[in-house]
Amino acid sequence: MSKITVMNFTISLDGFGAGADQSIEIPLGAGGEELHTWMFPTKRFRKMGGHDDGTEGIDNGFVEKAFENVGAWIMGRNMFGPVRGAWPDDNWTGWWGKNPPYHVPVFVLTHHERQAVTMEGGTVFNFVTGGIEAALEEARKATNGKDVRIGGGVSTIRQFLQRGYIDELHLAVSPRFLGSGEHLFSGIDMLSLGYHITSRTEGELATHMMITKD
Amino acid sequence: MSKITVMNFTISLDGFGAGADQSIEIPLGAGGEELHTWMFPTKRFRKMGGHDDGTEGIDNGFVEKAFENVGAWIMGRNMFGPVRGAWPDDNWTGWWGKNPPYHVPVFVLTHHERQAVTMEGGTVFNFVTGGIEAALEEARKATNGKDVRIGGGVSTIRQFLQRGYIDELHLAVSPRFLGSGEHLFSGIDMLSLGYHITSRTEGELATHMMITKD
Repeated sequence: MSKITVMNFTISLDGFGAGADQSIEIPLGAGGEELHTWMFPTKRFRKMGGHDDGTEGIDNGFVEKAFENVGAWIMGRNMFGPVRGAWPDDNWTGWWGKNPPYHVPVFVLTHHERQAVTMEGGTVFNFVTGGIEAALEEARKATNGKDVRIGGGVSTIRQFLQRGYIDELHLAVSPRFLGSGEHLFSGIDMLSLGYHITSRTEGELATHMMITKD
Repeated sequence: MSKITVMNFTISLDGFGAGADQSIEIPLGAGGEELHTWMFPTKRFRKMGGHDDGTEGIDNGFVEKAFENVGAWIMGRNMFGPVRGAWPDDNWTGWWGKNPPYHVPVFVLTHHERQAVTMEGGTVFNFVTGGIEAALEEARKATNGKDVRIGGGVSTIRQFLQRGYIDELHLAVSPRFLGSGEHLFSGIDMLSLGYHITSRTEGELATHMMITKD
């Protein structure tokens, strides 16, 4: 059955999923990239960068799993890029070069209409102006029965959580502080929304929590 | 050298160190006791209840360590009990019966003066009305060179963290949500205060983080 998932999403011990002040130089905000250091040495992540090496332990297993059975992605505009307001032109096509690591339809939440962009390797960026429900509807149609993965950033995931749309969430807790940034759970009562932690697995560089909805 | 420590302090995955609505029936607030389920089966915890059994693994090791080299405790009034406002009488002497598990001087933060209470087993409850600096000064004198352990609750630990007084903090992350309650780090920039996570250890039922100040 098709699920709505969040996978490989990392928070700091103080609960931040991204640093403050995102820009083209620092896509994940101040300190945000450090959150993901657990992922960088893994074989699956290295492969995205065109390398054949990398670790093959527990952390890598979670990265591998995160890409399985994904039929479509939804992401917020800030995850897609640093451009704000109306699209000045079609030049910006994401952070990931000509062949992004998605290889399926991606639905980007935005307030500003834009024509879809077809990339190499099967990734098609679609721009959805009707909010998260509209994006979900379009994404579900595009999945061929596979899962819809919600990429990020923090505010996008928070919107989906608050409405109870996420079926399964894999969270990596990185053993570091960010101090400031975008807090994932602040003001969201996960227990009342029916979410429970169903497993905890210690990886080499992060603690992995699997969270499911009642 | 004498250190100021917080040990065995548990937070939920969503960052709460205690539940909401503390009362005499639920000393740790709604859901707060569940936070500590990782501790209950340990041998050291069971011993406090007069039992000889219990687990002897990693979790137990952290509970054991938390009681080593403690020369004095500081705790907030809510950790000491549910009585608010001026002390109506001397009847309330803590949650822990005649022989509390401290066995050293304990300094209770309160706005209302009260005579010290000597319990069985070496615990003496002293009541400090001069705030956390006054409590620290008194506690340091009482330690005989051992450490001062800050017990809780959340607001007490937050005050000590915000002023940078904690040298070492052992945090247990319990793999569950509380949904609401008292958040430990909200509004506290641990990175700017100079705190870093120096180790992460997977226990049987919780993930243990050791945090130290630069």
